[in-house]
Amino acid sequence: MADVKLLGTWPSPFSYRVILALKLKGIDYEYIEQDLSNKSPLLLQSNPVHKKIPVLIHGGNPISESMTILQYIDESWPETHPLLPADPHERTVARFWIKFAEEKEQGKAVRETVELMEILEEHAFGLLKEKEFFGGEKVNMVDLAYGVMGRWFDAIEECSGVRVIDPLKFPLFCGWAERFNEAPVIRDNLPGRKELVDFYKRRREMLLAAAAAAAAAKSN
Amino acid sequence: MADVKLLGTWPSPFSYRVILALKLKGIDYEYIEQDLSNKSPLLLQSNPVHKKIPVLIHGGNPISESMTILQYIDESWPETHPLLPADPHERTVARFWIKFAEEKEQGKAVRETVELMEILEEHAFGLLKEKEFFGGEKVNMVDLAYGVMGRWFDAIEECSGVRVIDPLKFPLFCGWAERFNEAPVIRDNLPGRKELVDFYKRRREMLLAAAAAAAAAKSN
Repeated sequence: MADVKLLGTWPSPFSYRVILALKLKGIDYEYIEQDLSNKSPLLLQSNPVHKKIPVLIHGGNPISESMTILQYIDESWPETHPLLPADPHERTVARFWIKFAEEKEQGKAVRETVELMEILEEHAFGLLKEKEFFGGEKVNMVDLAYGVMGRWFDAIEECSGVRVIDPLKFPLFCGWAERFNEAPVIRDNLPGRKELVDFYKRRREMLLAAAAAAAAAKSN
Repeated sequence: MADVKLLGTWPSPFSYRVILALKLKGIDYEYIEQDLSNKSPLLLQSNPVHKKIPVLIHGGNPISESMTILQYIDESWPETHPLLPADPHERTVARFWIKFAEEKEQGKAVRETVELMEILEEHAFGLLKEKEFFGGEKVNMVDLAYGVMGRWFDAIEECSGVRVIDPLKFPLFCGWAERFNEAPVIRDNLPGRKELVDFYKRRREMLLAAAAAAAAAKSN
């Protein structure tokens, strides 16, 4: 029985963080694929709080959370391929960016947004058929629920330079959003496109300045 | 003193849902702009649980959550511009998609991902300068923290058709991700691009099928 076991699922990027660290260190381990829809007693017993992968089991002791596992691996096998700088100040800078990565789940957010837009395009905006709006000829509560998305998304995309709501990919949503923005009463009461773009530009500048200040505080 | 007050912030899309509904109904109201960094006693007293905007105050009674406010408005002023279909079955379909909109905060996820990538590009990957990796010539823990992003993002983008990590916009991140994917040990242990793309394609098909089933259950 191997002294090191890894409970993971394919192809979780969090499992792969640990797999790559073990491989870089040249540590032998047994990989045990988990079925998250039917959690194994070993997983439930190893990570009773979060019940999540990855879990590393070393000498019978379970360690969870991928970045915590990486720190454990680096401290337990310090001889080969060090994973943190030797210099204490450089270690602090490294830890700052590791913490930043842990706090955000970037890929997930984008994937979920695109999947959501695909569901909306096919099922919600597919419902419209020949109707102008969800309310028929007039805007109703469903139009209001989604309606604010169009103008705001557009402003966010304009100032970030990333286009998620491509009219070629989401023609039903984009056509409807254009009709919504031009509908009576709506047209006269939505904030202007330019004001919204300016708002998100200022917001982004403030955010980048705050990040620069935080990074500088660590680097200096 | 107006009988209807709206506490909101500019340019919150949640405030605008309510503003547009009030305008469509032709209801007179007093708009009171809130400063969320310094919450007013009126806001704290009106929405003591979430302390969030928008809050509608009608005849002294506060109502919060934008879509709940819209339902309240429609029930309290039924005469003009109905916001839900008269047919009970059509109301159910409308409510299904309203609930779907409430559960997701699409714009936020995309905006935050792009802002995060901008911070990373400027500050984290800017740190690299002439270094190949955060660990210098070898991959270290910071590389592992971000490294799994590259291959996974790429696969997600490939099967969704939306490109967020544009190499022209994030050249430092993309250059580093390419070096990471080709680094010794990493190259031989990352899942293949094709396997990942296939995985996310299957995942998306299952999700769309589940959404179709849920929508059909409401429509039939």
